[in-house]
Amino acid sequence: MLDAAIAQRLRQIVGENNFKDDRQSLVAHSYDGTPMLQSLPDGVIYPNNTQQVSDIMKVLAEHRIPVVSRGSGSNLCGGTVPVQGGIVMVMHRMNRIVEVDMENLTATVQTGMITAEFTAHIESLGLFYPPDPSSMKISTIGGNIAECSGGLRGLKYGTTKDYVIGLEAVLASGEIIRTGGKLMKDVAGYDLTKLLVGSEGTLAIITEATLKLVPPPKSKKTMLAMYKDLYGAARTVSRIIEAKIIPATLEFMDNPTIRVVDDFAKLGLPRDMEAILLIEQDGDPEAVERDIQRIKEICESERADRLDVAETREQAEKLLTARRSAFTALARLRPTTILEDATVPRSRIADMVLRINEIARKYDVSIATFGHAGDGNLHPTATTDARDKEEVHRVEQAFEEVFEAAIELGGTITGEHGVGLVKAPFLEWKVGSAGIEVMKGIKNAFDPHHLLNPGKVFAKESRKRVVISRE
Amino acid sequence: MLDAAIAQRLRQIVGENNFKDDRQSLVAHSYDGTPMLQSLPDGVIYPNNTQQVSDIMKVLAEHRIPVVSRGSGSNLCGGTVPVQGGIVMVMHRMNRIVEVDMENLTATVQTGMITAEFTAHIESLGLFYPPDPSSMKISTIGGNIAECSGGLRGLKYGTTKDYVIGLEAVLASGEIIRTGGKLMKDVAGYDLTKLLVGSEGTLAIITEATLKLVPPPKSKKTMLAMYKDLYGAARTVSRIIEAKIIPATLEFMDNPTIRVVDDFAKLGLPRDMEAILLIEQDGDPEAVERDIQRIKEICESERADRLDVAETREQAEKLLTARRSAFTALARLRPTTILEDATVPRSRIADMVLRINEIARKYDVSIATFGHAGDGNLHPTATTDARDKEEVHRVEQAFEEVFEAAIELGGTITGEHGVGLVKAPFLEWKVGSAGIEVMKGIKNAFDPHHLLNPGKVFAKESRKRVVISRE
Repeated sequence: MLDAAIAQRLRQIVGENNFKDDRQSLVAHSYDGTPMLQSLPDGVIYPNNTQQVSDIMKVLAEHRIPVVSRGSGSNLCGGTVPVQGGIVMVMHRMNRIVEVDMENLTATVQTGMITAEFTAHIESLGLFYPPDPSSMKISTIGGNIAECSGGLRGLKYGTTKDYVIGLEAVLASGEIIRTGGKLMKDVAGYDLTKLLVGSEGTLAIITEATLKLVPPPKSKKTMLAMYKDLYGAARTVSRIIEAKIIPATLEFMDNPTIRVVDDFAKLGLPRDMEAILLIEQDGDPEAVERDIQRIKEICESERADRLDVAETREQAEKLLTARRSAFTALARLRPTTILEDATVPRSRIADMVLRINEIARKYDVSIATFGHAGDGNLHPTATTDARDKEEVHRVEQAFEEVFEAAIELGGTITGEHGVGLVKAPFLEWKVGSAGIEVMKGIKNAFDPHHLLNPGKVFAKESRKRVVISRE
Repeated sequence: MLDAAIAQRLRQIVGENNFKDDRQSLVAHSYDGTPMLQSLPDGVIYPNNTQQVSDIMKVLAEHRIPVVSRGSGSNLCGGTVPVQGGIVMVMHRMNRIVEVDMENLTATVQTGMITAEFTAHIESLGLFYPPDPSSMKISTIGGNIAECSGGLRGLKYGTTKDYVIGLEAVLASGEIIRTGGKLMKDVAGYDLTKLLVGSEGTLAIITEATLKLVPPPKSKKTMLAMYKDLYGAARTVSRIIEAKIIPATLEFMDNPTIRVVDDFAKLGLPRDMEAILLIEQDGDPEAVERDIQRIKEICESERADRLDVAETREQAEKLLTARRSAFTALARLRPTTILEDATVPRSRIADMVLRINEIARKYDVSIATFGHAGDGNLHPTATTDARDKEEVHRVEQAFEEVFEAAIELGGTITGEHGVGLVKAPFLEWKVGSAGIEVMKGIKNAFDPHHLLNPGKVFAKESRKRVVISRE
């Protein structure tokens, strides 16, 4: 419960209606897109501009009150659950495009803007902002920056990080900093821009971003390749890259995902396939045609059982639906869906999928796997029931082994969702204790009193690595 | 002078011949590519592997002895001058390619490897590593990473930062950390990889890097466009980008540069032109052809006086020579050449060139300007004589105003050379005092006793900004 005088000061900054501490508002901001996590804040605040964010932070810093800044809270790592109470700062009112600069191909936006609205505006100007996280219809640009979101186009176009070239941010002290700019090159001091991207709200509150735009591709082609042999699909991924083709999209679904998606979306997918690859190439028409032809040859030589190449935009949309509905379809199966993002070098995808299946069997849990094959970024997804504590415990044990397997295969515990609360105990497995210490030092440099999204990224206790028993 | 017992311990780590403290070795490592800076170290050490670097750092940390790690010292910001003495650590013996992974399109290299040798090896495998700093024949991969080097292909392909996806580095304490990996996506904690790139040896000693490789372009076309009107050239740059064409290379030379280059390389360049653009496009042959055609139309509509399009590789090399010899040609004019890298949004190039000329006139100094027009990254280059203190002082005053002009136009004090010693007093102009404090906090987190390249990036005193008088 916030001191009444402090609440009053916050109300004075943002206006009566933009600070809330009624029960309903607190509950509504006590959780995010991650299942099974909840913690009540003491207040919810909606700033309208950077100066208000700065003024709010000065009050909170004075009283050492923690703050979780967030957009729509669609993250999957418990990144915006206010585990230490305090204030949740919702950025939705700061949703303006400040400027689109057609000469420099940059856009400057407030971070509360919805990603899909931003993307639509940019496309209406004949330009292209590639990052396309699955949550983009509800997520904000700021949330994407905080988590360094990826998406289906990451393989060819990179992730959010690759497009953020300047930031305005408010420090824990309330001071405002500006990094980078409309500059394709800037090496003036440490790269605070890239450091803040993916820092999960723990270093500063990002209020404005300057984003790099690119010319849109002139054409696009979409295909599905279906395999009875998982390794055939995996080899196809490697051989496409080895053939020096970088597709715009190279997505994977395993058999359990295929069956669930087909039940859900009635696409007539063959239910006996071990893997489906969704492949898109974009660019100049001649190059797209040539790449798709070569990809088809590779799929065939790796004994794909069926190849569907879309001839129209409608057909392409139907093929894309198969992949895009994976999460929704899985989420209908059981009350609780836990989606992870263990990532491995792309050459190790088949090994990783087999390890996931083995682990699922060992713990007798249901895990379907789909994801960004070209990036090696898989989404093993467990369907369970939060009320069944015993089963949930087995799911947690299974994911612990999945993270460990990813590390063993040269991968990481999170490719695009962030560490947040959920993966904090495992961070040391990836970065080592010296890495953790360095990161804690950075955290302290920005936020000495740990007011910004406390309890995230760094766990009170790291998990011990278990020895995996191989059946 | 190093204590004899410490020198002995260092010799034991690297072997008798790989630690030197004779006068000649000390003098040879007292300067770098930057004119007019010199400071003697107390010893020079050549480690052979990461463990030796770690062992060396433990000894130096114990005795609080500063260390400057370096490659070939070709930087232009005083980045590797040992201003506080101590040890210069030369990475040249750590020059092995650890692995090229054709499935994941990555290369792992020790950081003492010469850039051009690395590039040649990668190209012999049919792959492509785009960063091409002018110094690449002598510079090391580690030096490129330390300074986040750019090059002629930066506009389309980005800079060193965009290709570094994993690092091994030794902390000031001697601890070894590993960041990233063969992963296209990794959001496990703060992005230490990108933070270390461009950190100028002040945060850690980078011993090994995993670099992203890309498929090489299938074809390339080169042209020169020459203008009597500077703004015509500048508008051409903007209009090419607005036409949604991102050329591989889009370089600029002003009239003083043109004349000097023609004297030097006898290329028959028209000496009455105010600007020459060197333009290259690469990619699929049809797309290259179409882009070059469209670029020619834009050049013509902006009243280029002459267009030379290379029909053969030899002709292309000749056109490239014009730009590549700019620095060498200028360096022959007078005993001392000072090359800077003020950078502005690409839409402000003409304004910046005019401001540079105005400033040169004001201080009666000779400044020629060339550089990466597509990036807005200009190289105003003063030719002077270090022995003429009074003239050198005027050159310094002029560059101070050049940096200020860059900031005023929304730019930065350094686009690709780094801050080092030379630009440290001006860093605050770009990042603000709050930015400086955050960066100092990061420095302290990594290197609490300031042993790693001390005296760089952060100045004892920031320069006051002058008010520019506009004639």
